[in-house]
Parts: sequence; structure tokens; C-alpha cells
Amino acid sequence: MDKVALTQAQKEAYMREALYEAKRAQVIGEVPIGCVIVLDGEIIGRGHNLREHSQDATMHAEMLAIQEANNKVASWRLVDAQLFVTIEPCPMCSGAIINSRISEVYYGAPDPKAGTVGSLMNLLTDERFNHQAAVESGILKDDCRQIMQDFFRNIRRKRKKNKK
Amino acid sequence: MDKVALTQAQKEAYMREALYEAKRAQVIGEVPIGCVIVLDGEIIGRGHNLREHSQDATMHAEMLAIQEANNKVASWRLVDAQLFVTIEPCPMCSGAIINSRISEVYYGAPDPKAGTVGSLMNLLTDERFNHQAAVESGILKDDCRQIMQDFFRNIRRKRKKNKK
Repeated sequence: MDKVALTQAQKEAYMREALYEAKRAQVIGEVPIGCVIVLDGEIIGRGHNLREHSQDATMHAEMLAIQEANNKVASWRLVDAQLFVTIEPCPMCSGAIINSRISEVYYGAPDPKAGTVGSLMNLLTDERFNHQAAVESGILKDDCRQIMQDFFRNIRRKRKKNKK
Repeated sequence: MDKVALTQAQKEAYMREALYEAKRAQVIGEVPIGCVIVLDGEIIGRGHNLREHSQDATMHAEMLAIQEANNKVASWRLVDAQLFVTIEPCPMCSGAIINSRISEVYYGAPDPKAGTVGSLMNLLTDERFNHQAAVESGILKDDCRQIMQDFFRNIRRKRKKNKK
């Protein structure tokens, strides 16, 4: 079977699933970032940021989705898989994408402070590593950014209220 | 209490603990990389590479040590902690070190193919990220390199034997 490129509608449908994961983080007070991993049209891994609840620095959305996908296919290799994440990955998650051999990465909004898939550098296209991934950014960018902005605005509002 | 710099003997003692972890990986057929995390003179996290047994791409020595340390101190923040790892960290583990705010990183031998703490780049001293770690390499370098060389030589030998 030849690989068929995803349509824009398919990319947006998977990013909506990542946004749904982001909302699951939001409702429990975690920074709202979500991720899904797709293989042959099926979602094989899902994750949302759980850093505060777990008090574990490694529990980013992408890490949890990769771990679930590895478990699902019973292999650390996720060749031909596609990862959808609402915000540009950090170095840890970029490295996990390299380590798991994910083929394609789609993200919504950039992270100018810690993003390493285009903002500060691009680890996923660096040919010195033994794996590269195709990258496309900007899928449902406004929605992915908005849920983050609302979250942080809400925090500032609460802090202000508590000071009064 | 003022922070007291580690002596060379202390650094080597902790690296020997990381080497002990590497040997635990070696005996079960995993690439022999080990790691310990130290806080106030106490080892609060240990890990060795478990990628093949777990079939989980994220199960590097450093990741497991960080997760254990986070759990031990009940916080994702490992400020003032020291990480000892036998081989130079990859991008994923370098990123997890940044994310967990570890203060000092000591490694044995460099990884010229995937190391991002001096070889291909240095993510831990890049001031664009919101955290930097002090880095020292070369602690028990020969021992850390030797266990890797022995491991891969053994694999090549077995392959040759199977071909006959």
C-alpha cells in the first residue's frame, strides 16, 4: 500500500483530537497542551500535559502519547506514525520524537521560548541525528494558541483577585 | 548551608554508582548506560537503559532516574540536584534535565553521534532556554566508554558466529 498524504481536513480532524486532550489538561488546571499519534488512520496514542498533578517533569503531552503508542504497537519504533500536538515541542519531546522514529509532526502554534521544531532551532530536521521527521506547523493555530492564552489570562486574573 | 563543590573522589564515587546501573542494563542485553541523581549527598534517583525490554523509546537511563527523583522529592523541580550519567545525554534527556531544573550534570564519555551536551551542540548551556545546568565531562571516561565498546564488540561477535 502506497503512503497517501493527509488532506487538510484530516489534519484538522486529528488536531481537534489533540485540542480535546489539551482541554482535558485545562479542566484540571494543567497548562493546556494535548497530543495524539496516528498510524494508518487510527489514533494509537493520546496524551495531555500532567506535570503538576504528577509532579513529574517528564509528563508532557507528547511523552505520554509516545509511551501509549509504543505500548499499543509493542515496539519503540513508530515508523510511519504521525504526531499531532497543539504547541511546538520542547527539546525533551523533540528528542523523544527522534528516538521513536515518528515520520511526521504537525503542530498548531509555535512556542517562541522553548520550541525546538522551528522557533529556537529545528532538532527534527537536523541531519546529524540518525532520524529526521517531516514537519508542518500552523494546523488550527488560532484555536491552539487561544486555549493557552485563555489559561494564562485566567491565572493572572485569579492572582490579581487574591491580592485584593 | 552553603553549597559545597564536590571533590573529584565524590564525583567518581557517584559515577561508579552510574556505572553499576549501566552494568544492570548490560546483563539483560540493553545498551549499557546508567544514571544516578544526587541531592544533598543522597542518591534520590537511579536508572538504566530499558528501551528493548520495555519497547518504550523514552526509557533511557536519565529519564528513569529523573522520574524516580521527582517521585522521591514529590516535586518536578530538582533544583540543586546533580545528575551523573555514563554517556553524554541525547536531546530527549538533555531536555528532561532542563525541564526538571537539575543544577549540575556530570557525564563519563561523549556520544559523538547523538550527544547534545557538548558533541553536536550544548542544549544545557543555551541561554535561550529558561534553565541552564553546569556541565563537567570525562568522569571515569575510560570505564564508561569501555563497557559500551565491550557490549557492541560482543554483539558483532555473536552476529559473525551466527552467520557461520
